[in-house]
Amino acid sequence: MILIGLDPGLGTTGWGVIAADGNRLSHIANGQVKTETHAPLAERLVALHDQLTDVLVAHRPDAAAVEEVFVNANPQSTLKLGQARGVVLLTVARQGIAVGEYAARLIKKAVVGTGAAEKQQVHAMVARLLPGVKIAGADAADALAVAITHAHHLASARAMKRIIA
Amino acid sequence: MILIGLDPGLGTTGWGVIAADGNRLSHIANGQVKTETHAPLAERLVALHDQLTDVLVAHRPDAAAVEEVFVNANPQSTLKLGQARGVVLLTVARQGIAVGEYAARLIKKAVVGTGAAEKQQVHAMVARLLPGVKIAGADAADALAVAITHAHHLASARAMKRIIA
Repeated sequence: MILIGLDPGLGTTGWGVIAADGNRLSHIANGQVKTETHAPLAERLVALHDQLTDVLVAHRPDAAAVEEVFVNANPQSTLKLGQARGVVLLTVARQGIAVGEYAARLIKKAVVGTGAAEKQQVHAMVARLLPGVKIAGADAADALAVAITHAHHLASARAMKRIIA
Repeated sequence: MILIGLDPGLGTTGWGVIAADGNRLSHIANGQVKTETHAPLAERLVALHDQLTDVLVAHRPDAAAVEEVFVNANPQSTLKLGQARGVVLLTVARQGIAVGEYAARLIKKAVVGTGAAEKQQVHAMVARLLPGVKIAGADAADALAVAITHAHHLASARAMKRIIA
């Protein structure tokens, strides 16, 4: 199963694609989609949509996941993030890909083993869980962490079905 | 010139299409695009995109305008609004239509004559400026007010060019 994790942002959207075979994970690709800071908002949203569509078409993921939004203290930042996040969710959904959503605490728990982990611990564990990975940046690392969380979630959902059945 | 005004929202997005010939305005159509409250977010964003695309394809506006966002005190509402607004801006821009943005105060001034006007005064003036209009609801009325503002702005920009030249 091919999974994509996404960390939406208007300036930078991180993405990470992994292959999951039960609990066995391997890295496929990761990167960061950027938009021009000084371009008009609508133009930036189109650039985000078009670049992300290219990634989805290139890797054809079976499922996608994003981090649940931590609502920022700054309302202008929340609005900007919301606009980018709406475009990311739409772009993925229009390719017929279902999107899961995970709380930050759950991602830390899935990747590091504790919901109280620091960001750098998460990034270090992403590199250990996906040997040989070259991570494009902090947003791509966050995206890979979400993809790993989705893989664990799907694997344990399947494991649970086996126990019940 | 055909102009569309938009009042984005996740639950209801108002839209209003007018024809502007200098200062002469006439109503073409208005309505409200709705999404299911209990549907998953990505599905609601796709529904918003698809319905709005139908409106744009049906009326082929030359230009579009939205109200500048009043950042809500509630960050969850701001995030929801942001996600819907991102999708609306993307949908319009992908049809090759430029989008203007106007502050609420400027819209009130353009429609009623004072930036301190009440919402119901704005709606009453929209009905007077577009004789015979049947307004689909409060969000459609707001959308028509933005379209009227855009028409005035374009007309005065043209008038100014005449003075200079």
